[in-house]
Amino acid sequence: MNSEPHHVVVVGAGFGGLEFVRAIAKAPVRVTLIDQRNHHLFQPLLYQVATTSLATSEIAWPIRHLVRREQAVTTLLATVNGVDKENKRVLLSDGSRIAYDTLVLATGARHAYFGHDEWEEFAPGLKTLEDATTIRRRMLLAFERAERETDAAVRQALLTFVIIGGGPTGVELAGTIAELAHATLRGEFRNIDTRDTKVVLIEAGDRILPVFRPDLSDYAKSALERLGVTVELGRPVSACDATGVVFGEQRLAARTIIWAAGVAASPAAQWLDAEADRAGRVVVEDDLTVPGHPEIFVVGDTALAKRGDGRPVPGIAPAAKQAGRHVAATLKSRLAGDKARRPFVYKHQGDLATIGKRAAVIDFGRFSVTGWLAWWLWGIAHIFFLIGLRNRIAVALSWLWIYTTGQRSARLITQGRQSP
Amino acid sequence: MNSEPHHVVVVGAGFGGLEFVRAIAKAPVRVTLIDQRNHHLFQPLLYQVATTSLATSEIAWPIRHLVRREQAVTTLLATVNGVDKENKRVLLSDGSRIAYDTLVLATGARHAYFGHDEWEEFAPGLKTLEDATTIRRRMLLAFERAERETDAAVRQALLTFVIIGGGPTGVELAGTIAELAHATLRGEFRNIDTRDTKVVLIEAGDRILPVFRPDLSDYAKSALERLGVTVELGRPVSACDATGVVFGEQRLAARTIIWAAGVAASPAAQWLDAEADRAGRVVVEDDLTVPGHPEIFVVGDTALAKRGDGRPVPGIAPAAKQAGRHVAATLKSRLAGDKARRPFVYKHQGDLATIGKRAAVIDFGRFSVTGWLAWWLWGIAHIFFLIGLRNRIAVALSWLWIYTTGQRSARLITQGRQSP
Repeated sequence: MNSEPHHVVVVGAGFGGLEFVRAIAKAPVRVTLIDQRNHHLFQPLLYQVATTSLATSEIAWPIRHLVRREQAVTTLLATVNGVDKENKRVLLSDGSRIAYDTLVLATGARHAYFGHDEWEEFAPGLKTLEDATTIRRRMLLAFERAERETDAAVRQALLTFVIIGGGPTGVELAGTIAELAHATLRGEFRNIDTRDTKVVLIEAGDRILPVFRPDLSDYAKSALERLGVTVELGRPVSACDATGVVFGEQRLAARTIIWAAGVAASPAAQWLDAEADRAGRVVVEDDLTVPGHPEIFVVGDTALAKRGDGRPVPGIAPAAKQAGRHVAATLKSRLAGDKARRPFVYKHQGDLATIGKRAAVIDFGRFSVTGWLAWWLWGIAHIFFLIGLRNRIAVALSWLWIYTTGQRSARLITQGRQSP
Repeated sequence: MNSEPHHVVVVGAGFGGLEFVRAIAKAPVRVTLIDQRNHHLFQPLLYQVATTSLATSEIAWPIRHLVRREQAVTTLLATVNGVDKENKRVLLSDGSRIAYDTLVLATGARHAYFGHDEWEEFAPGLKTLEDATTIRRRMLLAFERAERETDAAVRQALLTFVIIGGGPTGVELAGTIAELAHATLRGEFRNIDTRDTKVVLIEAGDRILPVFRPDLSDYAKSALERLGVTVELGRPVSACDATGVVFGEQRLAARTIIWAAGVAASPAAQWLDAEADRAGRVVVEDDLTVPGHPEIFVVGDTALAKRGDGRPVPGIAPAAKQAGRHVAATLKSRLAGDKARRPFVYKHQGDLATIGKRAAVIDFGRFSVTGWLAWWLWGIAHIFFLIGLRNRIAVALSWLWIYTTGQRSARLITQGRQSP
């Protein structure tokens, strides 16, 4: 027996990386889990931090706490900036190197502006807790500035919120911001009526929620419109600055713009010098390994994995978790001496998106659920997927409170510039 | 009858300003409440945010939400940077001016370094939510760095936490950090044992909690020592830098230093060009007005008010609230035509401080309570003084969780540099 156990280095403790670590931890391996954050983030609810519904700590957990009982796992807070494939080493930003026998890259994605990086300043995206508190601050500051603004046109621009991108995140942001403006904040200002707020969701394609069935897209559009959201379809945004956006021929004056239109994978493909698609995802073999490197796996949003019909595996939490479990199973087989190739077969469980606090759409493929029942299913599912009893109780309490009172508890302007 | 109601401008929505506004809101006045933050902060529990026990949103509320039902009150998020006493105007940082008939300054205090402002960089203080998340980040990063540090001396410096100042905040920080290191984090690191952490509380005077009875100071010292805190008395800190502190003749290597030694009032005295004490507090008349300006009141930590025996009114929440209520009563009398001077008589209800999660000291003057009973009284009192049922439930849940599991839910490293 070898005295040094097989060493697995995992980069990224999102859904894919963490699921892999949990599945492999009891195998005869030593695991080093590296992340540049100290916390695992429950990204599906991040929009609720941005829109003042949840506190940051309700959707984030210290990574080392989540794996504390696994004695084989060492957690490192560190930034990876390269991989030396020949010598099987991960390079850290402080210059140190960590040798691996097997490498699992699960580094996720960032929002991408597709050649318009200059838009980021005006239209922040939503991937980290800091992104969420930045959007929260900008949104709340816009109302505060509007309260003091005497120029009617500027006031209307301050009360106009544009969300670019009609996927689930865009839909969820738009619906919640409309509720915040029309219900939560109503009656708290003296010089403005927050019901004058315009929330505009801009989608370049011909329908929102394009991965859903068309009738569900129509339902979601109607549900958003009932909440007071204006849905603009078929015209991509062509300009974006501090005073508004241009889409099609139209210029819309808006002081708060949020980007929910696209993501790009982390730089893992560059570290590996591997083939990547336009969004930066590493083109992997059917067993999620990097071509020519069976000891390197890529999972989650960083990988371009394929479904049976050739379509890419979507960049959602269940897909990353399935991939993490699959890689753990593959590695366990290998360590047991079974070198057979195990292709990853993604099982799509459905798509879901909420629209405010009373409606949601769930597309299970064969059937679908909409309306309040879908909202409750969505809520129960998300509380179930949260980690730990403590946060389940806390989030359930927060939602119960919002549901019954309309009040949101995390309306804080913190960090950055505080006052107008 | 005058068509323009009497206009009261209140600067600062801490305990004093908010209590004043609530007490005056039903009187025939118009109120403008100005704060440079959008939230009222429950400062007595701020140390619990710094030490990962509570989330920021559990101890902070949007000011305009707290006064939403008072139609006479307009809330402004703005920064005041001067007062024009002659023309009765408050000057805002954006150049605008707000006229007042009566002005109430309740602008609080900041931590002060008494001629050593260069220490702030190394020893942050605790007054705002950002201060708390900064201390939380530094503290958690120190453990993360220690986990990766190979030099034993540096590792020990990373695992040494110094709190300067033995008042209630210093005592509460020291006790909670000791619990965090010795219980909460225990078993989650692989290269360090967090029980090796040294927590040192440095107090220049000859006992901690100097405003308490001497036997209670002794009790608190023993209780801290039982938690593993080293209490250093009688030697003031004479130097402070990135690698440690010097007190008396001793140099102590420490990478995390927290300042809890002193505060100075906000610049209100400068705005008023009024007499101030060494800590910057405005010397006020016995009715809390500024000498020569009966239309300007100063309350809370910004004022140097006197007790019957000549000692200053302490800078604690109950004192600020009493002052706010007193000024509201004075103003109501004046508006009713009664110009009699009403001296402020401060009623001291007691002093309290917690030591970790099992002990506290409460000094009621005539009698005192220590130990677990004091802790429960302290906890119940603080939940009672929190604003709103929502936060009472949330904080009670957080404490119950910490009490029973030892786990703290807000162990997040956010903002600033994330990884070592």
